[in-house]
Order: sequence, then C-alpha cells, then structure tokens
Amino acid sequence: MKFDTIIHNGTIVTVNRNFDVINNGLICIKDGKIETVSSVPADYSPSGAKEIINAKGGIIMPGLVNTHTHIPMTLLRGIADDLPLFEWLNRHIFPLEAKYMNPANVRLGSLLGCAEMLLSGTTTCCDGYFHEDTVAQAALESGIRGVFGQGVIDFPAPGIPDPAGNIKTAELYAQKWKNESSLVIPSVFCHSPYTCSEETLKKAKRITRSNNLLFQIHTSETKNEFDMIMSRHGASPVKYLERIGLLDEMTLLVHSVWVDEEDIRIISKHGSKISHTPQSGMKLASGIAPVPDFLKHKIIVGLGTDGCASSNDPDLFKEMDVAAKIHKVNLLDPTVMDAKTVVQMATIRGAEAIGLGDKTGSIEKGKEADIIIIDTDSPHLIPMYNPVSHIVYSAAGSDVRDVIIAGRLIVSNRELLCLDLNGIIDKVNLLAAQIKKERI
Amino acid sequence: MKFDTIIHNGTIVTVNRNFDVINNGLICIKDGKIETVSSVPADYSPSGAKEIINAKGGIIMPGLVNTHTHIPMTLLRGIADDLPLFEWLNRHIFPLEAKYMNPANVRLGSLLGCAEMLLSGTTTCCDGYFHEDTVAQAALESGIRGVFGQGVIDFPAPGIPDPAGNIKTAELYAQKWKNESSLVIPSVFCHSPYTCSEETLKKAKRITRSNNLLFQIHTSETKNEFDMIMSRHGASPVKYLERIGLLDEMTLLVHSVWVDEEDIRIISKHGSKISHTPQSGMKLASGIAPVPDFLKHKIIVGLGTDGCASSNDPDLFKEMDVAAKIHKVNLLDPTVMDAKTVVQMATIRGAEAIGLGDKTGSIEKGKEADIIIIDTDSPHLIPMYNPVSHIVYSAAGSDVRDVIIAGRLIVSNRELLCLDLNGIIDKVNLLAAQIKKERI
Repeated sequence: MKFDTIIHNGTIVTVNRNFDVINNGLICIKDGKIETVSSVPADYSPSGAKEIINAKGGIIMPGLVNTHTHIPMTLLRGIADDLPLFEWLNRHIFPLEAKYMNPANVRLGSLLGCAEMLLSGTTTCCDGYFHEDTVAQAALESGIRGVFGQGVIDFPAPGIPDPAGNIKTAELYAQKWKNESSLVIPSVFCHSPYTCSEETLKKAKRITRSNNLLFQIHTSETKNEFDMIMSRHGASPVKYLERIGLLDEMTLLVHSVWVDEEDIRIISKHGSKISHTPQSGMKLASGIAPVPDFLKHKIIVGLGTDGCASSNDPDLFKEMDVAAKIHKVNLLDPTVMDAKTVVQMATIRGAEAIGLGDKTGSIEKGKEADIIIIDTDSPHLIPMYNPVSHIVYSAAGSDVRDVIIAGRLIVSNRELLCLDLNGIIDKVNLLAAQIKKERI
Repeated sequence: MKFDTIIHNGTIVTVNRNFDVINNGLICIKDGKIETVSSVPADYSPSGAKEIINAKGGIIMPGLVNTHTHIPMTLLRGIADDLPLFEWLNRHIFPLEAKYMNPANVRLGSLLGCAEMLLSGTTTCCDGYFHEDTVAQAALESGIRGVFGQGVIDFPAPGIPDPAGNIKTAELYAQKWKNESSLVIPSVFCHSPYTCSEETLKKAKRITRSNNLLFQIHTSETKNEFDMIMSRHGASPVKYLERIGLLDEMTLLVHSVWVDEEDIRIISKHGSKISHTPQSGMKLASGIAPVPDFLKHKIIVGLGTDGCASSNDPDLFKEMDVAAKIHKVNLLDPTVMDAKTVVQMATIRGAEAIGLGDKTGSIEKGKEADIIIIDTDSPHLIPMYNPVSHIVYSAAGSDVRDVIIAGRLIVSNRELLCLDLNGIIDKVNLLAAQIKKERI
C-alpha cells in the first residue's frame, strides 16, 4: 500500500497560503502526514490505501483549532447564566469548583468536553485548568490534539489548596508531559494579571521559556480588570505585562478586549498572540475586542470558545459565525472579518497562535493530517455557491461527519471511535443529579 | 379514543403566563388543540390516544415563531456576503431576483425554506416576498403555519413588472387567501418607507385594515434609510409612518434599529409590534435595535431571521443565542435579555407580534397544538440543570426531533413527513448549477 488513507470526492478548502479551494479534491495520507493534495485526475478510481474515505460531495477542510477552553467545565454548563461576572464567579462557579472539581470529576468533564469538540470538528484545542494532568490524560485517550496548560493562581484552587505550591505543580506537570506525546503538549496558564502576583507571573513564564512552551493568560478581559491593574500598577494590563517581561512570541493573551492603540503596538512588537473569544465577551458583557485593528497590526489571532460554564458549548462553527458578524455591526462595516479571514482564524491562525502553525491548521503537503469532512446534504447547506461562506454562515458543528487527527480516523459518520460516549453521559448525568440535589 | 395524541416523558417549558416548567410532563391533544397540560400522575402508563409520542426525557416546548422571513431566498444563500448593503442589493440580489425569481423557482425555494424551518423547530413564520401566492401554496403543502405577505414596492418586482399593479396584486392575493386555510393567513408586506410612496403605503395599509390582516414593513433598518426619510419627510421613519396613519396594533415594524426615545414611545402608544432580527443587523452592519428599551415600554417584540440571502439560514436557535448575547455586550450588562425573555420572544411574543397570540406560541389548554420536542441526549446538552438555558445557549436546530403543528405530526425523528426533501434538494442543486454557470 502506497498510502494509509485517501480522502476523495469533496471540495477541499485548503487554507494554505493562497487559500486554494480545490473542487473534486484528493488527499493522500501516510504515517499521519499529508503526502499529496490535488484535484482528482480524470478517470481516477481511488485505490492503494488501507482506508479510503469518500467525502460524498462535502467540504474537506483543516480541523478547527480552539485556542481557549476550560474543558472540564462542561460539568457546569448552564448552571448559572445572565449574571454579573463577579456574582457568577464568586457565588456560583468558584464554590462549585472547590466542591466538585476533584480528579475523578475533572476526568469525566474532560472526556465529555473532548467528545463535544471532536463531534463538532475541533481537532486541536488550547486548554487551561487545574488538575491539568488529568485533563491531558483524558484528551490523550480521546485522540484530540492540544496544548494543555496547568492553571496558576494565587488563591486556593482545585488540586492546589495552598497557592504556595502553584508554581511547583505547574513545573512538575510541564516536565512530565514535555516529551510524553506528539498530540498532547504541556503549557502553563496563569489565570490573570489581577489574580497572580508579579512574582508568580515571572516564575510561571520562566518555566515556559526554559522549556519552549506556550504561556497563556487571561488579559484585559473586563473594564473592571483594566481599572484594577491601572490602579495597582499605573499601567494597562498589556503595558504591565510588557514591563515585567512577560510578552514574547510564546505568550497567548486571551480575550484582550480593553486594549488601546499603544497596547496593540506593544503586542505586535513582541509577536505575542491573541485568543479572541467573541461569544464569551458578549455573554459575560465584558466587551468586544478590536480584532480588525489587531489584524491591521499583523498580530496573529485565533478563535476560542472559553469554558462551557460561560459560553455554553465549544462549537467553533457558532463562534466563527458570531466572530464574522460582531465586528461588522460594531464598526458598522459589513466588509470587515469576511468569511475567508474568519476561516483562517479558526484554523491556521489558531494553530500559529498556540505554537503549532508548522504542524496543523491547513491542508498542505508535509503537515499532520488533521482534517474534517462536512456533510453538505442538509437543507441549510443547499445550494452551495461558496463553501467558505457555508463554513462560516450556515454550517454547524453537527454537520461534521468525519474527523481525522494525525491521520487517524477519530469520528466516522458522526460516531466517536475512541470514547464510550454513552458511558460518559451516564456518569455525567449521575454527577449532575447529585450537584442539583445538594444545591437545593 | 379520548385523545388524538399524547406526548409524555419530557420536561415541558410551557411559556404560559407563569412560565411554568413541568418535569415529567403530559400533554393531551384533541382535534388539533391542546386539551390538558399536566405532570404525569403516579403509575401512569400512556394510553387512550391514536398516537403516543415519547419525548424520551427531552424538552417539550412551543414551536418557534419566526417573525421575519423571505422564504424563497434560500435559493440565493451564500451567493454574496461581506458586502455593503447597497452593493449587495443592487449588484447581486436585485438582478438575480429579476432573472430567476419566477413562480417555479419561488416554489422550489419556498419548499426548501419550509423544510429547513420545520427541521429546526419553527412551526410558524411571518413571510414577505413576491409571488406570495406561490409561497403560501408551498407552505400549505409543507404543513407549516404562517402569515404570508404579498410584497409591495414602487419598483418593478418579480411578478409585478409594472409597479402600478402592486396594490391590486396584493388585494387580490389577500382576498384569495383570507378564508382559505386555518394555517395560511394572508398579509401585505410593504418593502419600506423609502421604496414605497406615501400613497402606496396608505393604500396597502387600507387593504390590511379592512380585512383585519397584518401589515408588515421594514422600518429604520439602516442609518442611510433614516437619513433619507429625514431629508424627504423631515421626520424619522417611525414618526413619518405615524403621521401618515400607518401605525396600529396590526402593524409589524421589522428591524427598527435606528429609533430614538420618542420613536419608541410612539410605537408603544399605537401598540405596533416589532420584529427583531439581530443576526441580519449584525451581518449587514445595519446596527443593533434597542430591544431592552422596547421591552421597558411594553412593546411586543418577536424574533426574526430575515431571508437566507442575508443571514444565511432560518435556525431560530442560533437567533435566540445571538439575541441573548448581543444586547448584553452592547449595554455591558450581562443581566439583560435573560434566557427566559429570549425564549418568550421566540415563541409567545412572536405569535403576538404577528396577530396569532391567541392561537399559538405557548403550551396551554385551548391553544393550537404547535409543539416541538428537543432531543437532549447529545453531549452539548449534557448535563441539564436548566432547560431554559439549554434552549437559548446550547441547543441547535438540529437537536429538534419531532414537530407537531395543529396537532399533526410534521417532523418525526428528524424526518419530514409532508415533503419530498431529496426531490427538492435535487431540483435546487440543478437550478443553482445553472445560476452559477450563467454568472461566470
């Protein structure tokens, strides 16, 4: 056999540098990597591979990249909505996390979250949570690719009752996972500039710098945070992070809503990346990040859904749709954030934002074979004049039929191949019934 | 048999006046109407009905009401996006409509549109287009309920090459359908205050007034329109419409983005209704309607998706999600447009907005049995602490399993029972291939 897998009979949206769209395309995969991408030759009949996947006229595109998740929070989906951020966090989320987010439950929530992501076409995620060793283990079992950041915060947190141990925990975690798997890459996730001291931030960044890992941090999410940092440090969150030496190409600034012109120039100068989370910013009413300005300054911006406790599912198709629309109305300009830009943001730019741009995010020779196939036979995807428009404005996570990660078929005809979904759902329902009972 | 249909084993979100949510609920239907709504008695085993529908633990709710559609425009879905409104309309949509929107194609687009709406849980729509007689006929065949408005505009339009005939066409249409069906209610849809003269507007309103029908009009959609009416008539669109006597309880103002305090008081005073179309306003960059202010003034506001050429599918679940979020970020207040308010907007308020509040929009004794069942077994709806949160923030149209309209099962286990979906799709694909070829 010349190839392991052949994918044919679909429209390939490559998201390569030219943004080539190939009608009636053909992809050949060997050893987890993409060997060839082309249109189907005349009189071609697919053969010479262990597995031949017929896309049945659908859209073949790179797997989506979710640059901001808190995967185990699936367990708290919809438990509290429509509340001010501080009330939501302090009265609901933090107490629930303290009580229920032990390793067994983190594992359960992670399995559910990975299942959801895979079934809605996400092949790579960038996570930040506590008990991240457990999250990473669950992710590995699910077959998803990702960057998994152990949480660091100067308060008691799940698994770290004494914050004095937060840096050590993160360091041990990073060392353990550093060369463990090609799919699971460790990282450190500092909660924010207002919940971590300068010393904590610097120590955490040191761990990632010395291991060439991604450093993630919620930054400039709310006006409240901005004011707090301004009054404590006399600078905006971005300027404060620059001053203490935290900005470089392996720093991912999550949210980045309350930033000014100078902040944007600083981010651009240091080559730091941004995770844009439009739906989370809308639902929590924190604000709208100036993404078109980021793009003008050549900053790499990926899309993120945030955790399910706030936003309430990790479907990146929904996130693309909203990302395309929110900036149009915000600037009263229907030409900004066109469908192509948004598709790039959900794939190649997302991959670049989390340090995996050379591995995933596009369908090109030599890249890992992270590929999804969208079934375009549903009435809401008929007719199809432009597959790129459909990806952003009409398709939903539930239209994803097949998912391939590193050449391995993970979802086939909407069935998860690596996880026992029904078993996971039963266990989550049992736990939720308990949580519900104890809250009343 | 005491009943025609019994629905059991699900959580009923009634959307009645108390917004009662009934766990393990039971609905009995007779002659198309809801006879009883209750919780299941102890030791109950459903019997005594021709049809017994097991909701399998899902959410049972009123069918959704889409208060603004241009159904046949499914044919132009995704053909042009990310463009300024006037370029989009004049270079793309109007020429394509002139060329292709004949009765045969309007029928095809309408069948596709009705299929999509039904499959995503919409049981009632409020449409405005040309060749509306054809749209109404297609809708009747599909089994959907709706208000269908013949389009009136002072330009040549599909089916009315000479605008002098627009009023007569609308009048004949209204007379034909007035007592034709309990499901299909005629209406007149004036395109806007800037594309219809004062005389046209008054004549059109006279038809609807004398027949007690809904009068629909796009109003205050864009800043451009606002400026145009201001310079022509020295008043805002709303004040102009009031001055010429067009506002009353059977007037539906669609979009209503560019309105001020006084406009809002005027709309409230006359009891006119509003169709809120958040995604369309975002994508076309026309703006964000001040919906929380409308609600403070007790104006009845329904949700609408607009036509598929602009917004690009009629899934009201997506529209609910965005409606809940856009006002939160616009006002930087996460408590506005809570999930309950949004569910009401997509059901009972929508029904009230289009003159059908006594018939549909809630699950209550005596109402028409317009009911949908949401499958809650998918991972993105696990766990379920609060079904109302799930409806707005997590569910998608593709989660709707069964649809009942006027007591009749129209979608069963995601299969359309009245339409030949594959036949429709094949024909639309053929037409789209022709349109694509001719455009190149």
